[in-house]
Amino acid sequence: MTFASRIASLIVTLTMTAMPLHAQTINVMPMPAHVAMAQGRFYIGTRFSVEMAGYHEPRIDHAVGRFLGHLKQETDVTEPRAFTTGDPEASMRLYCAHAGEPEQSVSEDESYSLVVTQSQIRLDANTPAGVMRGLETLLQLVDKDEHGYGIPALEITDSPRYPWRGLLLDVSRHWEPVDVVERTLDGMAAVKLNVFHWHLSDDQGFRFESKVYPKLQGMGSDGHFYTQNQIKDVIAYARDRGIRVVPEFDIPGHSTSWCVGYPELASAPGPYTIERHFGVFEPTLDPTREEVYTFLDHFIGEVASVFPDHYIHIGGDEVNPKQWDANPNIQAFMKAHGIANDDALQAYFNTRLLAIAKKHGKSIIGWDEVLTPNLPKDVVVQSWRGGAALGVAAKAGHATILSNGYYLDAFKTAADHYAVDPLGVAPPDLTPAQKKLIMGGEVCMWGEYVNPVNVDSRIWPRAAAVAERLWSPANVTDVNSMYRRLAILDAHLAAYGLTQDRYQKTIFNEQLQGATCEALPIVASVLTPLTDWSIKVTSAVPLNRLKDVVKPESLEAWELSKLVENPKANAEAIRNKLVLWQNNATAVMPVMRDHPMLTEDVPVAQMLNDVCQTGLQALGYITSGEPAPASWSAAQAAFLAEAAKPHNEVVIAITPAVQVLVNDAAGTTH
Amino acid sequence: MTFASRIASLIVTLTMTAMPLHAQTINVMPMPAHVAMAQGRFYIGTRFSVEMAGYHEPRIDHAVGRFLGHLKQETDVTEPRAFTTGDPEASMRLYCAHAGEPEQSVSEDESYSLVVTQSQIRLDANTPAGVMRGLETLLQLVDKDEHGYGIPALEITDSPRYPWRGLLLDVSRHWEPVDVVERTLDGMAAVKLNVFHWHLSDDQGFRFESKVYPKLQGMGSDGHFYTQNQIKDVIAYARDRGIRVVPEFDIPGHSTSWCVGYPELASAPGPYTIERHFGVFEPTLDPTREEVYTFLDHFIGEVASVFPDHYIHIGGDEVNPKQWDANPNIQAFMKAHGIANDDALQAYFNTRLLAIAKKHGKSIIGWDEVLTPNLPKDVVVQSWRGGAALGVAAKAGHATILSNGYYLDAFKTAADHYAVDPLGVAPPDLTPAQKKLIMGGEVCMWGEYVNPVNVDSRIWPRAAAVAERLWSPANVTDVNSMYRRLAILDAHLAAYGLTQDRYQKTIFNEQLQGATCEALPIVASVLTPLTDWSIKVTSAVPLNRLKDVVKPESLEAWELSKLVENPKANAEAIRNKLVLWQNNATAVMPVMRDHPMLTEDVPVAQMLNDVCQTGLQALGYITSGEPAPASWSAAQAAFLAEAAKPHNEVVIAITPAVQVLVNDAAGTTH
Repeated sequence: MTFASRIASLIVTLTMTAMPLHAQTINVMPMPAHVAMAQGRFYIGTRFSVEMAGYHEPRIDHAVGRFLGHLKQETDVTEPRAFTTGDPEASMRLYCAHAGEPEQSVSEDESYSLVVTQSQIRLDANTPAGVMRGLETLLQLVDKDEHGYGIPALEITDSPRYPWRGLLLDVSRHWEPVDVVERTLDGMAAVKLNVFHWHLSDDQGFRFESKVYPKLQGMGSDGHFYTQNQIKDVIAYARDRGIRVVPEFDIPGHSTSWCVGYPELASAPGPYTIERHFGVFEPTLDPTREEVYTFLDHFIGEVASVFPDHYIHIGGDEVNPKQWDANPNIQAFMKAHGIANDDALQAYFNTRLLAIAKKHGKSIIGWDEVLTPNLPKDVVVQSWRGGAALGVAAKAGHATILSNGYYLDAFKTAADHYAVDPLGVAPPDLTPAQKKLIMGGEVCMWGEYVNPVNVDSRIWPRAAAVAERLWSPANVTDVNSMYRRLAILDAHLAAYGLTQDRYQKTIFNEQLQGATCEALPIVASVLTPLTDWSIKVTSAVPLNRLKDVVKPESLEAWELSKLVENPKANAEAIRNKLVLWQNNATAVMPVMRDHPMLTEDVPVAQMLNDVCQTGLQALGYITSGEPAPASWSAAQAAFLAEAAKPHNEVVIAITPAVQVLVNDAAGTTH
Repeated sequence: MTFASRIASLIVTLTMTAMPLHAQTINVMPMPAHVAMAQGRFYIGTRFSVEMAGYHEPRIDHAVGRFLGHLKQETDVTEPRAFTTGDPEASMRLYCAHAGEPEQSVSEDESYSLVVTQSQIRLDANTPAGVMRGLETLLQLVDKDEHGYGIPALEITDSPRYPWRGLLLDVSRHWEPVDVVERTLDGMAAVKLNVFHWHLSDDQGFRFESKVYPKLQGMGSDGHFYTQNQIKDVIAYARDRGIRVVPEFDIPGHSTSWCVGYPELASAPGPYTIERHFGVFEPTLDPTREEVYTFLDHFIGEVASVFPDHYIHIGGDEVNPKQWDANPNIQAFMKAHGIANDDALQAYFNTRLLAIAKKHGKSIIGWDEVLTPNLPKDVVVQSWRGGAALGVAAKAGHATILSNGYYLDAFKTAADHYAVDPLGVAPPDLTPAQKKLIMGGEVCMWGEYVNPVNVDSRIWPRAAAVAERLWSPANVTDVNSMYRRLAILDAHLAAYGLTQDRYQKTIFNEQLQGATCEALPIVASVLTPLTDWSIKVTSAVPLNRLKDVVKPESLEAWELSKLVENPKANAEAIRNKLVLWQNNATAVMPVMRDHPMLTEDVPVAQMLNDVCQTGLQALGYITSGEPAPASWSAAQAAFLAEAAKPHNEVVIAITPAVQVLVNDAAGTTH
């Protein structure tokens, strides 16, 4: 065993032994609404059978089949069985009261209850969706003791706090094939998210196969789009997991890809080409020409025939009015119709669009910008701007969804996202009826810096923190408990086929050109990415630099931040960690120098080495009991301020915890 | 068997039976200098042994090993054997007189002679390189008759006409991994090309691992570059096949990728990012600062230590003087040093560069633009501009290489390239000594529209026509013979692992989203690509449209052009072909409508249908003996003029042959 791998296994040991220190709660995420622990434990053994009683349909068979499949994969069960006829020996009795909504909506009943005794499991739900939620909870409850796999005896009564718990996946800026979409749905099901918001068009690509206007994808997608058959499969896959699919077609801005095949839709003459950069661009649909609405009528009719959900998202964000302002016909139209400004013109567009959607039996959702004084009340407003906008919308009578605070590409921590509660960030003066309009939220995976290789790592496990925020009671806010369960869930998701761990190997291999370096993942485990949005990039840039391979959050850094809360008691654990990282930072530097894709990151490794050194010195002062000299403290604070900045879009995530140690060493905090 | 596949097998039959119609020459490409056919045939059987006598080294073992491997793969040989001790039973005696040059140069002796009798094969060469050339000839001579695999009895004495027979591969604009490079070298060896010109840097990527300046590839390559170990492997792989490797680093223009990591090299302040578009860009090295030469000194020293060839190519083409003209320091330097203009400044740069190269034991090559009055004589000039430039260079005493006329990305036919002879396009008034300075030529595979999937199809088999032009005697110019042998060589190259046929399946699969369509390859077989360079593209555009999948040359169209030379005699063959294409054009249209990536090409299929219809009508007039009415001829000519234009960068390649039929129908040509 090499030095690096010996040290790597040390980490695992530390992590494992650190677990039991935390509160004695169940390892489920999102935390159920009501949990009552009982005495004893149900042991699973090798044979496990499920009796399905009450209302029955294929979705229940499928959900039970998936449940038993995972049980077989993760426990000693060798003979899983499911049946609908009575059997007094059944390991588990499942009862579904009645059918769910023909088409799942925000009103769907997702509640369930679970009773686990030493001899049997009972799962009761009103609908198949509730059955699915209960099965996911049950699967997460499985653990192992000295007698084998089992589930603690308990009673759970559970239902969601918000009915709209979504995840947005942008497949325009980088293409994501169907298998990525499906495994994202698997992850969503595991944490009880129930709306898949499919961002299907943007400047960089039109990803929906239109048979009515085939040049949309034919010229606007580089051949990377979903056929209608594939989309129907995805919708069925989602419905099988109790997940709605809401398509987004972003108009009138963010619409370059529409104009490649149909330049006549735009507000300035073409030709247009697919946009390769990221940002806000000029091509914008022309809201003043009837032909545009005829086109949208046919197009939305087609979309409505493919997507069964009641909502179609029409985007509406970040309209660049340059084409409108420069087009004399549009200016004349505005004058003739008394349309005062660009915002009013977009409001006119939205009103027309809403009428078209209604004609096809749909309602629309738009981003903040669609909210104008005369906007019809049945338009849902999704806020990327924040809680104040949420309040404005709700006060104007609009149902709303929060996404501000839930942007995964901002590389915030799970704790950051966890702290954002839609009702918590909304203005406090809302009436109960207005509060009810706040339907939930959506975590957003924008596509500028994700591809099929790294996308899972950008979504998971952090999205689970938002899933818990939207499902669990408002008072479930213990960050320590959340992180403890998040680490367990993270491993659980891997069993669902998600790749948030495996992806690193792919990119490290490319960076190391086939060489191996055990120090690199250890160093990477305390680094996080931070996008410098001022750097001009295009979709041609491969996502294979260190910033693309480090995980959005360092759970190692979080663990250190807990340990430094009590540095004297935890001195040995802290020292072990700092020595580990310092040794591996030293080991990784020559490798980085030898491998050009990593050479730019030698200063990061050097900086990590130095940060660890500062931490070890601080720990020396702390354990000696003698305060550090003020000059030393000042010098270290200056260094750490520098170290805390991103280098090549990579951040040394342990720096704040080391600053806590430096403060402590100076005697300033105790 | 479906209609389409029945028709497809009909094509194959037609092609096969058409072969024996041609002249009774050997099926070797390039055609050897002297061939004397003898009586009888050497049959290979199942056991085949080679005695290697005379000078011996591992390269001979490797070449014989490859030869025997192919023999085993393509014939009935099951027990190939090679040995160095005498054995009167040996199938083949190979004799190598002496070692080749320690480092192969333009002076290397590549001559060989082959004597094949009914009982034995003799291959004699002065050097291992000659052995390799002879073995390739021998392998191509193998064919099958009713008694089995064999080689006709004959005597060949062969040596090349030009000593510099190169292939340029641009790996900057699109990345090509090592396996593409190696199979390109396999193809080169098969047709006796002997210089691999590796275009390693351009605006879009720096592909050489510099250990001295690691930010060159670290920041300028997206991680897509060759390590020095990989480069050494490629050089060894090439040497094993008698191929020199000449690296090109294009400066002072085409140098954006240098400036990403080292903006201080440029003539304007940075920062710079990797260029994603194609064209001529501004970043240009600063020829007035000593630091730039210090950098180049260290860099060229490093390059010289990796590449053993005597030449380093320094590009020098298409310098955009904008940065020079705008930089007051550069302007002041020019004034102070009496440098009159931008060309003189580049000449100054080249002179300095030459001195650096000489210091490291190398000579330099540059494109046309480096040729200035005071350029030292030992700089080789490579002409992309044409024969006149070749003459100017030779008259000024420079060795030269021709590339004008050999650009594979221009999508010319093999016959077009075949017609270009370096000495043929040079001015006729050159002295014998000046003619000797014309060392040969290089076929160029620029990288804008090639990637690992389609690159083989863009190089092969057309590059073989240039290989023959540069190897075979000047009077080997029979285009019919060339095409006959080219078709056979094309199949032979597939056995070398080249993918110029297989690649289509990959792209068709993507376009058809998993569906099958047998009509599509048949329609594609009469289409060729034609790049519209006015369309602004970037490296982010995937190469998956119809224009990326059709082959650069339609051998079907060439066959038709031969048949229409005698339309009455060939009426049935012509009709069969036109009906085949028309039926498949009709069959492909609904498939194209249903598959959005192909929908843009429905008009191409329609046009092909109509072109075939015109051809069939013309054939009707021709066989009836009654001239077509003038009004019909005029209408068809107008239509064919329209049909001959590219549509979505795709050309209907049979249109000129159909125009011949229309002329014939009018009685204008016979």
